[in-house]
Amino acid sequence: MNYLDIRTECVAANKALQAAGLIDLTFGNASVLDAAEKVFAIKPSGVPYEELVPESMVIVSLDGTIVEGDLRPSSDEPTHRRLLQAFMDRGIRSVVHTHSRNAVAFAQAEQSIPCLGTTHADYFNGSVPVTREMRPDEVNRGYEWETGNVIVETLGKTDPNEISAALVRSHGPFVWGSSGPKAVEIAIALEAIADMAVKTLSLKPKASGAPDHIRKKHFLRKHGAEAYYGQPK
Amino acid sequence: MNYLDIRTECVAANKALQAAGLIDLTFGNASVLDAAEKVFAIKPSGVPYEELVPESMVIVSLDGTIVEGDLRPSSDEPTHRRLLQAFMDRGIRSVVHTHSRNAVAFAQAEQSIPCLGTTHADYFNGSVPVTREMRPDEVNRGYEWETGNVIVETLGKTDPNEISAALVRSHGPFVWGSSGPKAVEIAIALEAIADMAVKTLSLKPKASGAPDHIRKKHFLRKHGAEAYYGQPK
Amino acid sequence: MNYLDIRTECVAANKALQAAGLIDLTFGNASVLDAAEKVFAIKPSGVPYEELVPESMVIVSLDGTIVEGDLRPSSDEPTHRRLLQAFMDRGIRSVVHTHSRNAVAFAQAEQSIPCLGTTHADYFNGSVPVTREMRPDEVNRGYEWETGNVIVETLGKTDPNEISAALVRSHGPFVWGSSGPKAVEIAIALEAIADMAVKTLSLKPKASGAPDHIRKKHFLRKHGAEAYYGQPK
Amino acid sequence: MNYLDIRTECVAANKALQAAGLIDLTFGNASVLDAAEKVFAIKPSGVPYEELVPESMVIVSLDGTIVEGDLRPSSDEPTHRRLLQAFMDRGIRSVVHTHSRNAVAFAQAEQSIPCLGTTHADYFNGSVPVTREMRPDEVNRGYEWETGNVIVETLGKTDPNEISAALVRSHGPFVWGSSGPKAVEIAIALEAIADMAVKTLSLKPKASGAPDHIRKKHFLRKHGAEAYYGQPK
Repeated sequence: MNYLDIRTECVAANKALQAAGLIDLTFGNASVLDAAEKVFAIKPSGVPYEELVPESMVIVSLDGTIVEGDLRPSSDEPTHRRLLQAFMDRGIRSVVHTHSRNAVAFAQAEQSIPCLGTTHADYFNGSVPVTREMRPDEVNRGYEWETGNVIVETLGKTDPNEISAALVRSHGPFVWGSSGPKAVEIAIALEAIADMAVKTLSLKPKASGAPDHIRKKHFLRKHGAEAYYGQPK
Repeated sequence: MNYLDIRTECVAANKALQAAGLIDLTFGNASVLDAAEKVFAIKPSGVPYEELVPESMVIVSLDGTIVEGDLRPSSDEPTHRRLLQAFMDRGIRSVVHTHSRNAVAFAQAEQSIPCLGTTHADYFNGSVPVTREMRPDEVNRGYEWETGNVIVETLGKTDPNEISAALVRSHGPFVWGSSGPKAVEIAIALEAIADMAVKTLSLKPKASGAPDHIRKKHFLRKHGAEAYYGQPK
Repeated sequence: MNYLDIRTECVAANKALQAAGLIDLTFGNASVLDAAEKVFAIKPSGVPYEELVPESMVIVSLDGTIVEGDLRPSSDEPTHRRLLQAFMDRGIRSVVHTHSRNAVAFAQAEQSIPCLGTTHADYFNGSVPVTREMRPDEVNRGYEWETGNVIVETLGKTDPNEISAALVRSHGPFVWGSSGPKAVEIAIALEAIADMAVKTLSLKPKASGAPDHIRKKHFLRKHGAEAYYGQPK
Repeated sequence: MNYLDIRTECVAANKALQAAGLIDLTFGNASVLDAAEKVFAIKPSGVPYEELVPESMVIVSLDGTIVEGDLRPSSDEPTHRRLLQAFMDRGIRSVVHTHSRNAVAFAQAEQSIPCLGTTHADYFNGSVPVTREMRPDEVNRGYEWETGNVIVETLGKTDPNEISAALVRSHGPFVWGSSGPKAVEIAIALEAIADMAVKTLSLKPKASGAPDHIRKKHFLRKHGAEAYYGQPK
């Protein structure tokens, strides 16, 4: 068995999603990239989280070949692959997909999550965007790959480290980060932020968000060269 | 003691409902059919889930005779029986009834749960319908049996494998599947979907649902001959 | 130490409220009556639920004298006493007060909880009423005793076994039953019903409730001479 | 290692916030003052709650000098310091900051939490206020210190024992009390009250709150010279 590091990191990320309460049944999966080898580990499809071990991870190359593994990978594998391809040169090494309930509510309402406060700004330097509706030809041609494409299209020139999640319309969130633990952390934060946003909009339907100078302050005190949150590395 | 297989499957299904957090107090029950013997096992009425053992299940024939059992079956037994009769030739072997809170909210709002996204489409190939109001003569004549009748009437010619749940108006969900574990899984998914739908409609009261091509894609990637979710059997 | 039976029943009821998730901090209390001796056991004020033992219960007579106990009783003691006085001849032996969050939301919205479905009708044969606003003279004269009076006034000639709870306006629920476990069960059901009702009214603000023939059917299949829910006694 | 008492009290307060379910990820911190020595203990930045021990607390003087500690204090340290400075002569010894979800919803909706009922009045003698928007110059000059300043400005001449929390606009709650356990208790109560208020306002958007005579009665039965809640000291 090769690629033990990413297998282990991938098992931990998948289990952490469930432990964090983001998962109903088997609605969620994580992948972790070995950037040097250009392969990634991903959860096998439909296997309970409790049963996951490094051996059961599927190793897939960035061109879509299954390199190692007896099990079928998550049906969302092409979406993970498309996002890793697009974002790996910006340091993204892990993708997480969940159906966490509040983030899904925004995806189903076909609404981006606006930056309503500092919890959001601590993680995302702007709205978490919702993708456009996918066309029938995209769905028929290669649904999961095209799902990745509409996310990449939605991000456009945005730095994937500044907006590290998107809501696939009528579906749910995809999240990415520099490692398995970081992608999971962002997925947890996203769900908390979405819950707060549902409640904020219930209190004030026209809530328009935190002012720019507050948003930037919070994002930059946790991210980038001037960050002063946490302990020095 | 006969029928150990369905007794055991029925105990597990009832306990799984509680473990999944779908149950307040004793508001829920599951039944499992032995199709060859034309009898089913069902939870006894008002007994705590922790105390259930194979011996305490009540065995009822499809014509309503108690075949084995010292305890009274769930008061909803005739509804289970009616649904098993109607749907068994389509492979349905288990019925689950809960008062899970979000599904009940739709039943009490007298609204079907529209297919608002892919979580729903992964399980149901269309809206989860709400039944019509039951008439006083139906309530007086044989309330629980007639509850089964209005569900069957609501399904009409719909394949019970495509829409495997209904909301009894002003009451709550009944769910069915090919086995105890499958019916429980669908009941868990239904409650998650209903929660997401309550929140989606809070954000966007006129949300009209996922487009047909997305809905069909998701239903068919998990169900039927072309399914590619999970591991090959 | 006398009155061990009601002390033990009262400790169990108080702990069961917390175990059921109805309690934040110390916001809740239960009492249990010894009808023959005309005394009741009640939780001491401000003591954590984990520390409660039969010895710490306060024994109070129906005229308000502390019969046994070194601790101060719950500040709500006069409300419990007033309700036990009023309802004991109808078999009520236990009173429970909580600040469970959804029931409080109705109390704070100054709204009764309408009978929106069968979960409600299984427990209450009609709306759970909200009391009128208490006047300054009532608050000054003997606030907790007068709280009991407005509940009794609100019930009027209604059988306390048919409507076994009321919402004190701007405050929260008081619940009563034939025993500690029964009053706790009704308090749990009330909170579940209130949660369902908040969600139902979010989906359909003008929801008017289950029809009378459904409500009566459900109440009577669990209560009274013709009940057929649960096992025969 | 000095200041063991406040180190220990501070560790316990931080862990209690997490145990109470108020914390997502590491979104929250507590500080405890030694009033005689004019220093306080505060959580180090970005350290998981499970790893906190008395040694890891940072000891800071009221003028902002780090007195003891190898780790960087919470980035919110200047806010805690400003509040302790302002309120210590009224007996305040502990400050707690969380991003508890319902309190954040009010902060993000830029609304005070009105006193809608007795649960609120048991803790706060009036609305829990939301601060004004901070100006860019305040954010640039010393964001966390100025956050403390706007809270102090918002309180004005109000006794910090009567209104012992404020919502920083677009951010979240800061809470204070006479000890670590008391500040944590108030933070727990605030989140429960905010949840009840979100639901109350969902049921009745124009809910205006409990009448003054009810509010005062509840606040004064738990606080001040005439209090009769709990056991005599």
